[in-house]
Amino acid sequence: MAIITLTTDFGTRDGYVGAMKGVLARRAPGVQLVDLAHDVPRHDIAHGAWVLATAALEFPRGTIHLAVVDPGVGTARRGVIARASGQFFVGPDNGLFGYLDIERAWAIAASRESSPTFHGRDVFAPAAASLARGHDPDTWALGQPVALVGQLPWGTRPAGEGRVIHVDHYGNLITDLPGEEAGEAVAIAGRRLPLARTYEDVAAGELLAYVGSMGTVEVAVREGRADGVLDAPRGTRIVPVAPGGEYR
Amino acid sequence: MAIITLTTDFGTRDGYVGAMKGVLARRAPGVQLVDLAHDVPRHDIAHGAWVLATAALEFPRGTIHLAVVDPGVGTARRGVIARASGQFFVGPDNGLFGYLDIERAWAIAASRESSPTFHGRDVFAPAAASLARGHDPDTWALGQPVALVGQLPWGTRPAGEGRVIHVDHYGNLITDLPGEEAGEAVAIAGRRLPLARTYEDVAAGELLAYVGSMGTVEVAVREGRADGVLDAPRGTRIVPVAPGGEYR
Amino acid sequence: MAIITLTTDFGTRDGYVGAMKGVLARRAPGVQLVDLAHDVPRHDIAHGAWVLATAALEFPRGTIHLAVVDPGVGTARRGVIARASGQFFVGPDNGLFGYLDIERAWAIAASRESSPTFHGRDVFAPAAASLARGHDPDTWALGQPVALVGQLPWGTRPAGEGRVIHVDHYGNLITDLPGEEAGEAVAIAGRRLPLARTYEDVAAGELLAYVGSMGTVEVAVREGRADGVLDAPRGTRIVPVAPGGEYR
Repeated sequence: MAIITLTTDFGTRDGYVGAMKGVLARRAPGVQLVDLAHDVPRHDIAHGAWVLATAALEFPRGTIHLAVVDPGVGTARRGVIARASGQFFVGPDNGLFGYLDIERAWAIAASRESSPTFHGRDVFAPAAASLARGHDPDTWALGQPVALVGQLPWGTRPAGEGRVIHVDHYGNLITDLPGEEAGEAVAIAGRRLPLARTYEDVAAGELLAYVGSMGTVEVAVREGRADGVLDAPRGTRIVPVAPGGEYR
Repeated sequence: MAIITLTTDFGTRDGYVGAMKGVLARRAPGVQLVDLAHDVPRHDIAHGAWVLATAALEFPRGTIHLAVVDPGVGTARRGVIARASGQFFVGPDNGLFGYLDIERAWAIAASRESSPTFHGRDVFAPAAASLARGHDPDTWALGQPVALVGQLPWGTRPAGEGRVIHVDHYGNLITDLPGEEAGEAVAIAGRRLPLARTYEDVAAGELLAYVGSMGTVEVAVREGRADGVLDAPRGTRIVPVAPGGEYR
Repeated sequence: MAIITLTTDFGTRDGYVGAMKGVLARRAPGVQLVDLAHDVPRHDIAHGAWVLATAALEFPRGTIHLAVVDPGVGTARRGVIARASGQFFVGPDNGLFGYLDIERAWAIAASRESSPTFHGRDVFAPAAASLARGHDPDTWALGQPVALVGQLPWGTRPAGEGRVIHVDHYGNLITDLPGEEAGEAVAIAGRRLPLARTYEDVAAGELLAYVGSMGTVEVAVREGRADGVLDAPRGTRIVPVAPGGEYR
């Protein structure tokens, strides 16, 4: 039976996540429900997008990812099903799928009875359940395929540099600068950092840059938090530099 | 195979939730375990009751809901199995099932070996596992059916008004005033609010009232938190008012 | 199909837990994934060890427990598979399995392609998936069995006394003093506490000691937090005393 994963900013103290799971279990009996993350900061689409980028494609083909970080619920923003790498993504078209290479997408019409404030339960979970039951979005009453319009706040990466795109639970700064472009050192927020291999290459409390688990440069403090040491919020520029010389 | 959901105030940093899941997996092999919410505020029965009210009945008939918010564990408060809408609820009889229309309930006797401080693991999880294996509470050694005595702090709703009964993760105030009684405007905490349809009907930072996903009136701040703007804790009264006139 | 549980300090806001689940679902199709706890405090190995100690052995034989609290990831610390009570544990050999009676253990070699900072995804999840598919660690290419070297910070308990080894979500102090050694009263942090049976044996706001759900002495405040009343962090000594007399 299909797997449906859930990613939301609903937190873990209300019944909202459970209501969605109930709809999925009722409409797609036997489906396997897998929580990705529910403590995405409230309304933080870019954060949710990175959760999907780091986790979703590890799942087998055919997995359905239900993702709801949806500050625009009840407005004109569109609900969509999108396909990437043989997996399906269901949620609002607001940038949440911005890191994925979407092959095809379909708009979902909200039915008349759906609550204007809880599309997760009334629109997206039913759509995910239909996919889990094997319905083909192309033959289903979803209307024509559409192109996604949601965007990440930092747009396309300029050549030769990167940006901080995520700050994780440990205070690590994740950038979109590919490891292979980083050379031997990087500059960020006024600091020059040689590329290390892993945490033990520096002393406790020291900053380091290294190629992280997504293949891009990350900045951390060993046994500490980089977000407490550097003033480098999301969007901050990071550039490769010559190890001993000037910023290039 | 049956579904067992879990709702607790145990948090997600200890082994308590896992211990219950282990008992369920061992005693009811193949059962599907589904987390509803584990960050119910400590000992907040009314909060846990609302989580069940919003999520449980979305599940298919036969689902078993294990719910443990149990400040009275080890005291004379009773453990029960209760049935509502063809689903089962297992936990303490302390008000946690206060929003449900209970059709029938059975008292569970704690065995001599059960820990006096962890009935979730030693009393409620074994009872839920027995239900999952198809045991009929009426033929089981549960003693006579009982009537629940647990109460919500706000009792029955007076005609013509409502109360704030929940404050959610977003700071929204959820009331028990049915949408169809709200008319065109409501008054709460000294403010008169016209009924809007959804968030985009007001500007960012503005208060709004609307009929929420449970069919009752909710009060929110668009892109903000109503619980930070209004002094309206749980129990606060909300009444329908004429849009431009006096409170009725 | 096998059960794999997950215990981490990854939190519930990033994609790290989801990435591990994806690897497990892809490499061990049909496996049942069960979250134990993901809000173990960052890098707190002893806390994670206690989560496993309280939850893991409730599961049926053959369960696989994937546990990642791994401040030394990328250093020389070893990754291991360990067996205790017919169940398997997969994670770093850093003390995380320190409460378990390990019968046998095997070192896991990190492959060349694994990220040096995310062994959870690249080393431990693949090993757990292999176990779930029925691979026998003794015939598998894991090298020779090894003895674990990871230690808990408090080592072996001295005879006749105990230590605070965990502070839980409710502020309860969990010790390793067995209930049967506690006698009628205990002393901790300058206070003498008679052994009670359960919370209702004292008034609200009062300290009490009792034999907890793991069979050892715990210290709590009824309707309050013991960690806010006593200055008794982990490692604090607790000793049995005569009820009315001197510390023995």
